Parts: sequence; C-alpha cells; structure tokens
Amino acid sequence: MEKDLNVVGTRVPMLDAALKAKGAALFTDDLVLPGMLYGKILRSPVAHAKIINIDTSRAEKLPGVKGVVTGKDIPDRQYGIVPMAKDEYVLARDKVRYIGDDVAAVCAIDPEIAEEALELISVEYEELPAVFDPLEAIKDGAPVIHDGVKNNTSFFIKKEFGDVAQAFAQSDAVFEDTFYSQPVNHAPLEPHAALAQFDPLSGDLTVWSSTQIPFFLRRNLSNTLQIPESKVRVIKPKVGGGFGQKIDLFAKDFCAAWFAMQLGRPVKFLYDREEVFISTRQRHPMYITVKTGVKKDGTILAQDFRAHADGGAYNSTAPTMIALSCFFLMIPYHVPNLVYEGSHIYTNKPVGGAMRGHGIPQARFAVERQLDMIADRIGVDPAEIRIKNSIHAGEPHSAGFVINTCGFSESVAKAAEAIGWQQKRGKLPLGRGVGLAGASFPSGVSNMSHISSGAVVQLGRDGAVNVLSGAADIGQGAETVISQIVAEELGVRIEDIRITAADTGITPLDPGTFGSGVTVRAGNAARLAAISAKNKIFEFVAEKMEANVADLVARDRQIYVKGSPETGMSMPEALKAYQYADLPMPIVGRGSWMAPASEPTTLFKEDGNFAPNYSFMTQAAEVEVDLKTGKVKLLKMVTAHDCGQPINPMLVEGQLEGSVVGGMGQALYEDVIVEKGQVMNPSFLDYGFPTFLEMPQIEAIEVETDDPIGPFGAKEAGEGTQLSPAPAIVNAVYDAIGVDFMELPLTPEKILGALEKKKKE
Amino acid sequence: MEKDLNVVGTRVPMLDAALKAKGAALFTDDLVLPGMLYGKILRSPVAHAKIINIDTSRAEKLPGVKGVVTGKDIPDRQYGIVPMAKDEYVLARDKVRYIGDDVAAVCAIDPEIAEEALELISVEYEELPAVFDPLEAIKDGAPVIHDGVKNNTSFFIKKEFGDVAQAFAQSDAVFEDTFYSQPVNHAPLEPHAALAQFDPLSGDLTVWSSTQIPFFLRRNLSNTLQIPESKVRVIKPKVGGGFGQKIDLFAKDFCAAWFAMQLGRPVKFLYDREEVFISTRQRHPMYITVKTGVKKDGTILAQDFRAHADGGAYNSTAPTMIALSCFFLMIPYHVPNLVYEGSHIYTNKPVGGAMRGHGIPQARFAVERQLDMIADRIGVDPAEIRIKNSIHAGEPHSAGFVINTCGFSESVAKAAEAIGWQQKRGKLPLGRGVGLAGASFPSGVSNMSHISSGAVVQLGRDGAVNVLSGAADIGQGAETVISQIVAEELGVRIEDIRITAADTGITPLDPGTFGSGVTVRAGNAARLAAISAKNKIFEFVAEKMEANVADLVARDRQIYVKGSPETGMSMPEALKAYQYADLPMPIVGRGSWMAPASEPTTLFKEDGNFAPNYSFMTQAAEVEVDLKTGKVKLLKMVTAHDCGQPINPMLVEGQLEGSVVGGMGQALYEDVIVEKGQVMNPSFLDYGFPTFLEMPQIEAIEVETDDPIGPFGAKEAGEGTQLSPAPAIVNAVYDAIGVDFMELPLTPEKILGALEKKKKE
Repeated sequence: MEKDLNVVGTRVPMLDAALKAKGAALFTDDLVLPGMLYGKILRSPVAHAKIINIDTSRAEKLPGVKGVVTGKDIPDRQYGIVPMAKDEYVLARDKVRYIGDDVAAVCAIDPEIAEEALELISVEYEELPAVFDPLEAIKDGAPVIHDGVKNNTSFFIKKEFGDVAQAFAQSDAVFEDTFYSQPVNHAPLEPHAALAQFDPLSGDLTVWSSTQIPFFLRRNLSNTLQIPESKVRVIKPKVGGGFGQKIDLFAKDFCAAWFAMQLGRPVKFLYDREEVFISTRQRHPMYITVKTGVKKDGTILAQDFRAHADGGAYNSTAPTMIALSCFFLMIPYHVPNLVYEGSHIYTNKPVGGAMRGHGIPQARFAVERQLDMIADRIGVDPAEIRIKNSIHAGEPHSAGFVINTCGFSESVAKAAEAIGWQQKRGKLPLGRGVGLAGASFPSGVSNMSHISSGAVVQLGRDGAVNVLSGAADIGQGAETVISQIVAEELGVRIEDIRITAADTGITPLDPGTFGSGVTVRAGNAARLAAISAKNKIFEFVAEKMEANVADLVARDRQIYVKGSPETGMSMPEALKAYQYADLPMPIVGRGSWMAPASEPTTLFKEDGNFAPNYSFMTQAAEVEVDLKTGKVKLLKMVTAHDCGQPINPMLVEGQLEGSVVGGMGQALYEDVIVEKGQVMNPSFLDYGFPTFLEMPQIEAIEVETDDPIGPFGAKEAGEGTQLSPAPAIVNAVYDAIGVDFMELPLTPEKILGALEKKKKE
Repeated sequence: MEKDLNVVGTRVPMLDAALKAKGAALFTDDLVLPGMLYGKILRSPVAHAKIINIDTSRAEKLPGVKGVVTGKDIPDRQYGIVPMAKDEYVLARDKVRYIGDDVAAVCAIDPEIAEEALELISVEYEELPAVFDPLEAIKDGAPVIHDGVKNNTSFFIKKEFGDVAQAFAQSDAVFEDTFYSQPVNHAPLEPHAALAQFDPLSGDLTVWSSTQIPFFLRRNLSNTLQIPESKVRVIKPKVGGGFGQKIDLFAKDFCAAWFAMQLGRPVKFLYDREEVFISTRQRHPMYITVKTGVKKDGTILAQDFRAHADGGAYNSTAPTMIALSCFFLMIPYHVPNLVYEGSHIYTNKPVGGAMRGHGIPQARFAVERQLDMIADRIGVDPAEIRIKNSIHAGEPHSAGFVINTCGFSESVAKAAEAIGWQQKRGKLPLGRGVGLAGASFPSGVSNMSHISSGAVVQLGRDGAVNVLSGAADIGQGAETVISQIVAEELGVRIEDIRITAADTGITPLDPGTFGSGVTVRAGNAARLAAISAKNKIFEFVAEKMEANVADLVARDRQIYVKGSPETGMSMPEALKAYQYADLPMPIVGRGSWMAPASEPTTLFKEDGNFAPNYSFMTQAAEVEVDLKTGKVKLLKMVTAHDCGQPINPMLVEGQLEGSVVGGMGQALYEDVIVEKGQVMNPSFLDYGFPTFLEMPQIEAIEVETDDPIGPFGAKEAGEGTQLSPAPAIVNAVYDAIGVDFMELPLTPEKILGALEKKKKE
C-alpha cells in the first residue's frame, strides 16, 4: 500500500467547522420557507390505555389552526426501522403504550397556537394496567402491551457456538454474576426537527429532517404515507448529533409530510428537549447474567450470557440490538464456547433504540467487570487475563468472523503502560485506583439488503471537484473524511473538494450513518468514484504526454510520470485541456461499495463474517473516590486504539473524547429516571450528564494496523471507544475502594452506601 | 427519426408551476440565512462627473451599519460580459458615467438602515459635460465618456458579403429609408437580487443570484473578487424572468459577496424597481438606415445597412449585439450582396444590453418595414415579396449558414391565409388594416470558447431519475423541457424525473440561458446523458433477457425487445435487479453537447455556420386605429412558426404569447423616457407596458419541420417570435391609415400628428 500520503492522515479541520462555530450552518430548524406552518404533537399522559374517543373539534376551531390529525385519519401502516419488527403507528390508533406516546398532531400558523390547540383536544382514555419492570413483564399474567406478544417478549434469540456444557465441565472454575445497566439518553444538542413541502402538481414531497439515514427515511415515509418512494425526496441539512437517536422515523417526520400534503403549505415540526427525552429513543436498560468458565491461568473456556433488555413500549431496533449483544461477545476475546440468550421485553416506558455501541456497552460492562472479578478471584492480573484471551488476526474465529488486522493485545499492553499499571494497580492509597477494559467494534456490517454506498465524483474545468455522496454527516465529520479520501486519490488538495451529501434527489444511494460503517463504506465508494474519474483524465493526459496510464500518478494537483514530478501537467491544466478537446464532456466517476457477503445479511445467521473489518481498543482509567461525599472523579483516561490508519487523526480524537464523556456518563452520572412510566428528569439540567468541568485528562495512543479492506487502511473510530470507558472506570473504582459494583451508574449515594456496608463487614 | 413519442411533444405543465402559483417557490429574495445582513447601493445622481472624494465616515457610524465599500476599496478589475469589451467597474473608481451608476454600497442589519446610511455618504463630484444623443456623441469634440475611445464609438463593425456596388448598379430600383427603434426595458417580474455566504475556513463563497448564467457569473465574480473560480459556487434559485437583463454581473452580486467575505455573515441585496429600470440593462435604441436594391419583381439584389446603437454608459454585450444585428440580415431572406456598418456608441445614459432578440428586433423593424414600403412602391404584394426572397433549406447561403430545415416561405403563406390577407389587405375601411413580417432566429450559437452544456443522469433503485443539468431555467420552462427529453429517451414518465439545475457546485458546466440555445444545447446534452445511462441498464437487461442491447427499447417504464412489448421488464424492476446484482453501482450517464464549429466562435468571423439550426416565423397582425384618440388596438396576431418539433407545445405557446406582448410593447407602448440622462418613467405604473386588457386574439400555426440536429427535431422557440410582431403591427397600421411610420413606438400622439399631417397634404 502506498504510504506516501498527502491529505489522508492529516489533521484537516472539519469542513463545516467555521460555519457551525459562527451559527451560519443551516440545521433543519434554521430553514424558513414562505408560508410555513408549524406543528406540534399531542402525547399520551397515561402509560397504558385504550383510546375510546378523540374530540378534535375545539382545537380545529381555534383561530390559526390549519389542521388536526389523529391515528384514525392516516394510512393503517405500522412502522419499524427493522422490517421484521414493525409494531408502531406514527400516531396511536387504538392504544397508547407509554407516557409520551404520539396521539395526535396539530398544524397552525405559529408554534404557540399549535401548542395551545393541543390543550383543546379531548382524548377519552380507558386506562389499562401497566408494567414497568421487564422482569415483571415477562411473567405470566402480566399486562399485555402488544396483542399476541407472549410474555411481552417481542424478540428472543438463543445462539450457541461450540459445546458450552462440556467446556464448563472442563473448566477449573466457573463464575456467575449479574449486572444491570441503566437507561441513558443520547441527548444530541440539536433536537429532532422536520420540515416538509409538497408540490401538488408533480406530487413530489420534499422532507428536510434531522435524520441519520435519509434513504431509509425516504422508504419509511413512502410506506407510512403510502406514496411511491420516488415521490419522496429527503434532504439532510446539518445535523447536530444523532448517536443512533435519529435513525427512526418519528411523528414529526410523518406529520410534517402529512400536513404539507393536506394543506399545500410547508410545515415544520421541532421537538422540545422534554420530547427528545420521553418520546424518541434511549439506550436499553439491561439485566445481564454472565457465567464464565476459565482455566487456572485465566484462559476462557466458555461463557453463558443471558440478557433481558427493557425495550419500553415498542421494538425500534430490537432484533438488531439483541443480535449485536450476542455477536460482540466474540470479540475482542477468544470465547471458544458460548451460549447466548437475549430477550427484548416490552414495558410501558420510553422506547429503547440504537445508541452508540448499540446493545454492546451493556454487555461489555458485564463482561469486562466480570473479567476483573475473575482475575481477582483466581489471582491473575486483569491486564494479563485480557492479553491471554485476546483474539489475533488470521486465527480461525468461533463465529466465523474474518479478522484481517487486530491490535487488541498490543492495545492492552500500551494502555496499561500509559496508565502506570505496574506501579499503581493495587498500590494506590484508599480512594484512588486504576482499571482497564477492552472492546472491539465492526466498521459497519456486511451486505444489508444490497444497500450499497454510492458516490459520484465530477471534475470541473475550474479544477474544482464536486463529490456527491449519500453518506449522512451528523456532526462526526463524514464529509471531511470522504473529501480527504477523494482528494488523496485524485491527487488534489482538500480545498479543491466540494461535497454534497445526503439529498436523495441528488446523491446516490447510501444506507446512512449507523454501525460505524461510514468511513469504510462511503469512503471506499468515494475512493472508487475518484479512481474512475482519475482514470478518465489520466487517459487524456497519457495521450497528450505520450505516456502510459499505468505510469501516471497524481499528487498535490500535479499529474506526472511516476518518479518524474518535474514533468507532466497540473490537474487544472489537464481539466481545462480536456474541456477544450474535441468533445468536452463532464468528467464523472462513479463508485459503489458494500462489504462482501454471500447472503443479504449475516446478522441473524449462525456464522459468517459480520463486518468488513473490526477496530480494537483498551481503555485505562484512573479515578479518585471522595470517601466523604461518595463522588467519583475520573482523573485520566488512556485509550490505546486500533482504528487502522486514521484518515483524520483530529476527528478520531474528537470521536474518542466524545466516547470518554459518554462512557463517564454511563458509569457515573446519567440515568433516565422513570417512575410509573413518567420520566422524572427530562431536561439537561435534571439529567446531569458530564460537562466540561468533569473532563479528565485524555491520552490517546494509536495502535497502528493497516487494514486491507478499509480505504487507505482505515477502520471505524466512532463507536468502539464508547464501549469500554464505563467498565474501566468501575474497575478502577474497585481498585480504589475494593467494592465490586454491579449496577450503573455509580452515584455518590451508591458509593457511600457501599462504603458504609463495607465498614460494617 | 422515431416519431412515436410518449413524453416529448406533449403538453406537460411546467414542473414548478404549482409551487410558483402558490407562492412556495423560492426566489433569491425568499431565501433567509441566520444572521443575514442587507445591502444597498448608492447611485450617481449626475450623468457624467469625476469623483473627487467619497466620505463614508458618517454612514459607518450609523448604528446598525456593518460596512461601507467604494470603488477604491476593491480590486482594480474591470468587468464586461464579453471579455473583449471590459469597461466597467463594479463600483465606480474615478468617474461616474450615467445617472444610476454604482458608486458605493452599504451593508446593515436591515434594509431600512442601509437605505438611511446611503444618505450619509458624501460624494464630491466634479461634473463633466455629458452627451445623451449617440449621433452627437460620435462627433469630434463631443465629451469623452471613456478615455481612449474615439468618437465614443466603442465598437464598429463593417462587413461585406458579395459585391454590393455592382448589385445596386444592376438593380431596377434602389430605396433608402431611415428608422428609429426606442429603448425598452426587460421588466422581469422578479427584481434583481443576490445573497452571499462565505466560509472563512474553506474560503468557499456561495452566491445565490437571480442570474441567467450561473457559470459565467462564477467566472465574473472570481475575476472581480480576485479569488479562484473553484472557490465560488453560484446557485440559481427560481428566477422570475430575465429576457437578457440577468446576464451581466451587477454590483448586487459583487457587493453581496464582498461584504459576506469581509464581515463573515450572509448578505442580501435586492434591487427595487427603479434600480432595475435605471441601473441594469435595456434594449439598445438604434438609428438604422437601410438601402435596398431590388429587381422589378421584388427580388432583393443588395442591401446596405447602417446602424448606430446607443449603448449608454458601458459596453455590456456591445460587440455581440452589433455583430448579431449584421448576421441576422441574412435570414430569413436571401440577400446575395450585403454591406453592413454597425456602431456601438457611448452616451451618458442607462446601459444597453442583451434583450430578447438581442439587436435584431431593431434591425428586423427596419428591414420588414422597408420591405413593405418597397412592395408598395413597386406594386408587389408584401406577402409575395417575402415568399419570393425566402431562403430555403439546403441552398447555399451567402454568409455560410447551414440551413437544414426552413419553413419560412410556408409560414408567410399560412400567416397570410390565417389573417385573411387576400380579403383584407388594402380592402378594409379606414382605421383598420392588416400587416405581416417575417423573422428567423438561431438556436444558440456555435462553439463558444468550448463551453459546452453538460448533463448527468442518475438512475435510482426506486425508479426515480435524477438529472443534473447546468441549464438555467429563468421561467421559460427549461427544466420541464429537459425533463421531457430525458423521460422520452429513457422510456420513463415525466413524473419519474427530478431535475436539479444550475448549481455550479453540483451540476456540470453550461453556458446558461441566452441566445435561445437551451433546448438544443442542454436538451442534446441531457439526451446524450440519458442514452448513456440507458445503455448501462440495457446491457444489464439484455444479459438477463438473453437479448441484444440493440434490439431493446424503453417506453412508458417498460424495457422490452422491439416489437414485443409484452416481454421484458419494467424500468423500476430492472433498476432494482441491477442494484441487487453482484456489484451494485449507481447508474450514472454523462452527456455533453456543443454546436460543432471549427473555430471557438464564428460570431466575429467572415463566414461559417453561425448556429446549430434556425427557427423561422411570420407574424400577421390586424389592427384598429381609433382615428379620434390615435390609439392603436391590436385585434389579432397570427404566428406561423417553424420551431422544428416542439418538445412541449404548451410552453412554445407561452413563449409565443410573451413575444406578442413584447412586440406590442415595442410597437405601441413602451419607451424608456430619458431627459438629460434621467429616466423619467422608472416604474411599472409610468412605464406602461401592455397588460391583460391589451391582449389581442392570438392564433398559432405550427409549420412543422424535423431538424436533424435539435433533440427530437427541436429548434428554438423563445426569441424568434419576438422579432416580427412590431413591424407586423406597424405594417398593419400603414394598411389601416396609409401612414408609413419610421419610429417606434406608435403613441397616440404620433398617430394623431401623422393623421393631422396627412389631412393637410
């Protein structure tokens, strides 16, 4: 692989950074259309009830109200982001299933009137018994939340690799522990919004939405509105963070489109922060029991993993999440024998969905915590037990994953070294401790229903490169990364690239932003498109220079015969000359990429390679526990990280810092507190995620590998680092005060209670 | 040629008609960006003066003012839409040359403050003698408007074809007559506007402008701002008419960009109606003397044509306009010997520029009027003299034009028949009369500096076709026509097409909208892109069907073996299958088209084919002159029109109706009245163009030809029909009252004066 890179691997500032910093970037709510109307959603105040009647007449009569819609008015189509898990109406039809469920929508000339009109809608509910605890919900006789779903268990997956019973029998020791991971909210800075416009002549619907997946949103709108997909255009403006919460279709998308079509005027919906908390998505709370069999030296022989995920009122990504929790028990450790049982359980609570890490942070917390506990119990060093069980590139893998590159064991060693493991672990004064945890994550998943990433690269005569990509930049910098890849491949400068991304009316197909697949998938597509465009201009230049295409290289705007950079012509000269040649043509390269897989998806199959490649990381934390207040302070977090070749080290660091904050939140601060179905802390103030003040020292160590599949050797860098901070912190708390916490988050109350209990022992 | 068409040739409503009718379409002034500022231009109150000093300090101190700029602050670059004719600063540097000249610009937090600040700018002028009459301006000793331009004549073109002196000598009669055509304003409904945003990080400037030529505007901004062309992105929102007036760069474009770059905030400029009248462009007033030698039977042997065009203070399109006036004397009549002398003369008045017909309506008025006068003098029927002198397809042409198809003589006969020529001409009562006039127009010009039209056609798996075209729809329906061409070629329906047009950051190069070249140029490019995309899907389908690509046809969303429409598969099925094949790729077709020509442009050369093809038309008018009030009422206008195969007959009719109104205005109503350099009627109310109330009965007769070069046989339909209504009306007035008018417009005063004079004779 050519390693003499010019643009890839450099710290290019995010292309839209200045516009965002100046408040000039256009997010959905910044868009203004002439004659625009405003919508609001009426939400259920009860956790579980039949809807007997909805009287909208008073709301309709309020001056300024243009329309009211309820579930009975719209097509009878259930929605679900995973086709096999459709269970939700955009507006409730016969039942509401949680406090916050979408019941009706109002459209008015301003948001205040719309809000006022909501209060004039009378809904007659017949309340039903509700269930809030998933372990209660699975019992016979529990309230039925969805007809026909036995024990409220909408998905149950059991998988076994190897022979677990035999392996347990062969183990020197078997340990069983139970953990709980709490609900946390994504809390993107930009609340969810949608703006829709309808052209009654052409029947074209245009929806601007704060979405992570424009092409899937198009499909979901087409399905719920019952209009052809080709008549729906989804445009993604700037998106202020998603973290998985902006994957689903929401009532705001549907209702904006619905009213735009009914009223013939543009309609905007903007959720307030409370709505984001109660009625979008959150990370699934999960009860996990892990039973692990090990040899004396710490080698893992078998694992039995049982998870009960509290899905809240609807499925959202339920089957995917439950399957992911399973597969990611197979990395970064070699687990030759595994049995997995995962249940997705309905409760009358806010809905769980995809969230950074998607089912895995919960599992990782359990496994990484237990690994420390086992190490302690059998007298092995926690760093050593991780290195010992590490998977390695090229080795056969129990679930059939193909691991081309793997820097995991090296990451453990480096993280341990950087945190001062040898000097500190078990040796710091009471209240101070270190801990570590490992993880791995896929760079997207293989072949999803043949939804490839596409890219089109156009070369203009002015030397500018226009890139059309379907990838959805939601703040992570995907457009910058794709631009760097194109610039590198074409041999131009980053400032020559102009990218248009995620407008289903202009850009080619792309699955969107989830599963950390964007850099590899859309990056490869863009690279292929750049190669295809480059070949066209190379053919022209080769003829002019009487050289062979194969001998040409392009670098820093210059095209020349390899080894003779003084020859040749500049890219702008070449483009101009091409346009002045006999038949000037726009130079257009096209590219497409999809991780190869023999079947549409291996996600729910027994084995097969799950992803194009896998990132690996170890995080090591040092904490200080205030023994008087119970407050845990994260002093330092080291991340030793194999994300292949980083396309943009600065953006990788940004992802990593965000991950550390997310992991700290999960470990110490965040918890969506729900009492009888009512979220008690639905605001930034009450929810209390970590802020600037809580930021630890962050050290990043690159464990370089050179992946053969990712563009220029890249692997994912967006989610893997979110998986291990929480267990690393909790493991460090154990080192600091000798208490094994099994439940998140470690609030001061829990710390003080544990210290108190310990004192009594 | 395949004549079994499905979409081309049908009356598809303009794609954006509904959005425009509902006020939902976004014109430049409808765009709103966060933190947007507003600009205004300070204009010269004097016709000719040196600028001694500009004091902007009081304006700068006005609260709310963010910036003031004068000609001294900006790069010293002259601007001109024609490179050889650059003579204008975006903001005046040392001199002002007409009342309305751009002197300074202010940027403020609202338009009212900006307006107020203009009054606080003190400009010290040293007034210079001014000249307003072009025939005075060419005299020795006249005030010098531009240094170094002798006799204020910035362009003088003399051309001769054949031997004019000899031909006059051989003529049976030679007639010389002098005509005057007045200044008229384009008066687009949408005033000129620009909005600019600058990204200080990338250095990217984005300008939304009510422009007809986004790619040239990009070039002109790059040049005047002195930043690379690749850093300028021009986006054309909806444009509410241009008619040539939106071809130039204006101070609003430059200053919006300038302030955006200086202040780091978006800046909008919107001209008011008075500014549109005084400081944009208008049709050149022209003094024309024609000397024509004919045989007894009316055969034209020679013409000597001398034109003095009053260009106002700057060149704008001067050389082009002057050259066009010449070349269009060679169509639609056979003029074997021609001498032409054309002068473009500076005066201290508003600036002449391109306007529908661009220099030709004035020439056509003179020639068509004189043709009637000659017919009368030698006793030949005006219709007959036109038919006798008509050029014909395939005949050699004196200027080297290649006329593949020509329906002119047929158009004369049909227009005459439809107006009732035989029954009415010379036979109606006093005050009532009929008249006719002919014309021809090119469908764009050949090779302009290798600026081709490009198009990209993308086929999505949803069956939608996304078209990227650089063509600028300014209200004429270019997007609809291009969409029809793509739909026809791909064999899909019009509603399957979604077009994105004229965004230099997304769409391929295109010269823009002028010279009626869009349908042929951009239409051919789009057709080629569609063919290229179709070939890709055909290759796939052929393999699947075990058929030959060459045998496949696509029609109405179905792909099948020719002759067996029951076989095959639908286009959406094919696209879906293609995407599910091993390597799904976006299907992207690219096309480019430019009228072939051996040299970059033939416009200023002695001969060569001027355009890809030529439209032909005859218009016949019936008028009623109120002998008491002098008011002329146009009762009926017949247009017999060869525009090849109309892509969309409804849009052709729309163009034709607009042309009739424009021609009526030129003949009877419109006149930009200038007194000592001051425009006296710069408002819709005072200017008084024809309205709904003045509309005549309009009859359109199609003279079908099938052009081999235009897409699906099409030729231009936007400008040709604007050329002959005025002479047809004036010829009809002659028939009605026996007065030969030589000057436009025929106001009631002139009619009454002439009747009075006639009575005395």
